[in-house]
Amino acid sequence: MSLIVQKYGGTSVGDVARIHNVAARVAACRARGDDLVVVVSAMAGETNRLLGLAAEMCSDADEREKDVLVATGEQVTVALLAIALKAAGCPAVSFLGHQVRIATDSAFGKARITSIDDSRIGAALAAGKVVVVAGFQGVDADDNITTLGRGGSDTSAVALAAAMHADGCEIYTDVEGVFTSDPRLCPNARKLDRISYDEMLELASLGAKVLQIRSVEFAKRYGVPLHVRSTFTDTEGTRVVEEEASMEDVLVSGVTYDRDEAKITLVRVPDQPGLAARVFGPIADANISVDMIIQNASADGTTDLTFTVPKADFRRALGLVEAHARDLGATGVRTDADVAKVSIVGLGMRSHAGVAAKMFRALADVGINIQMISTSEIKTSVVVDAKYVELAVRVLHDAFLGGGEGRG
Amino acid sequence: MSLIVQKYGGTSVGDVARIHNVAARVAACRARGDDLVVVVSAMAGETNRLLGLAAEMCSDADEREKDVLVATGEQVTVALLAIALKAAGCPAVSFLGHQVRIATDSAFGKARITSIDDSRIGAALAAGKVVVVAGFQGVDADDNITTLGRGGSDTSAVALAAAMHADGCEIYTDVEGVFTSDPRLCPNARKLDRISYDEMLELASLGAKVLQIRSVEFAKRYGVPLHVRSTFTDTEGTRVVEEEASMEDVLVSGVTYDRDEAKITLVRVPDQPGLAARVFGPIADANISVDMIIQNASADGTTDLTFTVPKADFRRALGLVEAHARDLGATGVRTDADVAKVSIVGLGMRSHAGVAAKMFRALADVGINIQMISTSEIKTSVVVDAKYVELAVRVLHDAFLGGGEGRG
Repeated sequence: MSLIVQKYGGTSVGDVARIHNVAARVAACRARGDDLVVVVSAMAGETNRLLGLAAEMCSDADEREKDVLVATGEQVTVALLAIALKAAGCPAVSFLGHQVRIATDSAFGKARITSIDDSRIGAALAAGKVVVVAGFQGVDADDNITTLGRGGSDTSAVALAAAMHADGCEIYTDVEGVFTSDPRLCPNARKLDRISYDEMLELASLGAKVLQIRSVEFAKRYGVPLHVRSTFTDTEGTRVVEEEASMEDVLVSGVTYDRDEAKITLVRVPDQPGLAARVFGPIADANISVDMIIQNASADGTTDLTFTVPKADFRRALGLVEAHARDLGATGVRTDADVAKVSIVGLGMRSHAGVAAKMFRALADVGINIQMISTSEIKTSVVVDAKYVELAVRVLHDAFLGGGEGRG
Repeated sequence: MSLIVQKYGGTSVGDVARIHNVAARVAACRARGDDLVVVVSAMAGETNRLLGLAAEMCSDADEREKDVLVATGEQVTVALLAIALKAAGCPAVSFLGHQVRIATDSAFGKARITSIDDSRIGAALAAGKVVVVAGFQGVDADDNITTLGRGGSDTSAVALAAAMHADGCEIYTDVEGVFTSDPRLCPNARKLDRISYDEMLELASLGAKVLQIRSVEFAKRYGVPLHVRSTFTDTEGTRVVEEEASMEDVLVSGVTYDRDEAKITLVRVPDQPGLAARVFGPIADANISVDMIIQNASADGTTDLTFTVPKADFRRALGLVEAHARDLGATGVRTDADVAKVSIVGLGMRSHAGVAAKMFRALADVGINIQMISTSEIKTSVVVDAKYVELAVRVLHDAFLGGGEGRG
């Protein structure tokens, strides 16, 4: 008998019929003898509906109260799923964040789990019940309701699996697993059977929206094996696991892209110590996250400093840079709000030379100009003109994963 | 400086604009220097929407989980009102039943409040905040969410006012107060300025849906002065208070009616000890509440036994009676599903003779036949053919309250 934590996303519980479908899946697993803790998200669209109400109320709604508001989304789903399970003859009980209890810090809207008291869940499991837990929510030390931020239900599930030393954590979603690239852009994209935590982290942070990045970090830290799979089929999904030796045989496990990038360049700034701090201090203070940064010193003692920010923050970031450009001695500011980032990810890059070179060559062969390059141990990213993003993804997928290469 | 508990019903917080309106009212009261605890219901229609989801899920949904589900209605409203208050510059904080904490028994769907720990509310008030509390909900000893039943937010407000020794409890609703009769039936109906708890109890239980009956019982027991008034105007409403000597000067304070009555008669039953128990035992077991009961023995040793039940329970009750009629020796069962109850209520009945006689005379004068009569200390009710209900109400209102008589 195993203890399995299952998590069902908003699409999986999007209406009454789908909740019945989830109940049937859960009841079947339970009938096979496993102990089950089921974490659910709000019904698809519900969190946005609630945030819309808050925005209608006030453009700058109080964060604590917003968490009280949106936490109702998951509360509705746990109640409905527990009702469906009991109706299906499967004993069940729902718990909210404060009942479990899932303790967090007090960072409303983006709280972090600090501890989980699993005694109440353990007692319910011992009594033969399926335990349905509201994802996304917790309580701080003062019993205030907190939420974990978008996609937080993944983190709830993984944290529960870690706290309860579960044998596995299954993430049910509306896709069949993690793909080598976005199938909408790349007809050859195929499902990965296995992927390492580190690769998944790079894929998650690069825009593959299958798993929330914090949940993967959590799974890696506590060694929780994840299984990302579809709620609507019975096929195996993608297992996200500890790195295995054979994984390095594959150069690239995925090609991802992110259209949400805008580029700003400070032209010919005198290159002096503290320059970067003076540029990025005010941007960080404005809570804008900078993605890529490139600085290239010339022989004449000046440098071009280029960086990218999310498109939504572009105007604000530009305002901050322009306010300081003269002080910094720059001759001007150049911008391009229409760029995209394309990345390849793979453990194989660590041990195989020439992966980046092969990437640049493939892009050059179809005439795509590379504007910026950034690399990490298992990832290489380039910024290109936004209009080339589909082509770039397809070309790179063909080059590294196209002909049946890669981890299938 | 006073401590006031205010309660706003579902219509008062029915949409974003109305919640802003409530916030403005609350902020204005706060600006006058009062400490405020504000109890809110779910937005109009929301509880029914949630119960509809549960019913779609399962015709016999689990009671514990239904409470988890519907408690979200009030949770949404407290968050939105707290957001609106802070946006209006009025410091505020929301609390749910488990945060306050409002302890109840474990009778899901109709829980009773056992105690209230007001320390957290007290601290928030001391910090200068308006405290917004979710009505209708509490927690049992095992931290399960409970609800108090329909209209339970009134009870939450009164219980909080009692626990905190508030100076008053204001019930805001979509009518201007308690009326001498239903203005839709009775154009002469007028708002009462003051009414005793006992009169309000009779009016509430007889179909005047302004206040939930348990909240009035609670207010009476703990001496909490109530003020029922409109959310949408600034006019004084109706004060529900301890009985005052002058109140008995008025014979009748209100005329009410209830169309939700169906009548069943067991004809010529042999009159023997235990008859009533044998008739009403099975009906009580079926959880059907019987309203009026009349038994009249004849000289021939038989009796006609007549009683009324809610229309929705009529078929079930009839089935139970018919199943037993032969055993009981009745010659037959007569029914009338189309009757209504009309009542007059007033403290004055206690000390003034002839009130009932005047009532019967007024009805006889317009040719309305009285089918059943039932009386209590401060109330006289009659059952009449349903088609006469408007006429009966108007005639009785004219007779007792029409010409500027009564407590205005």
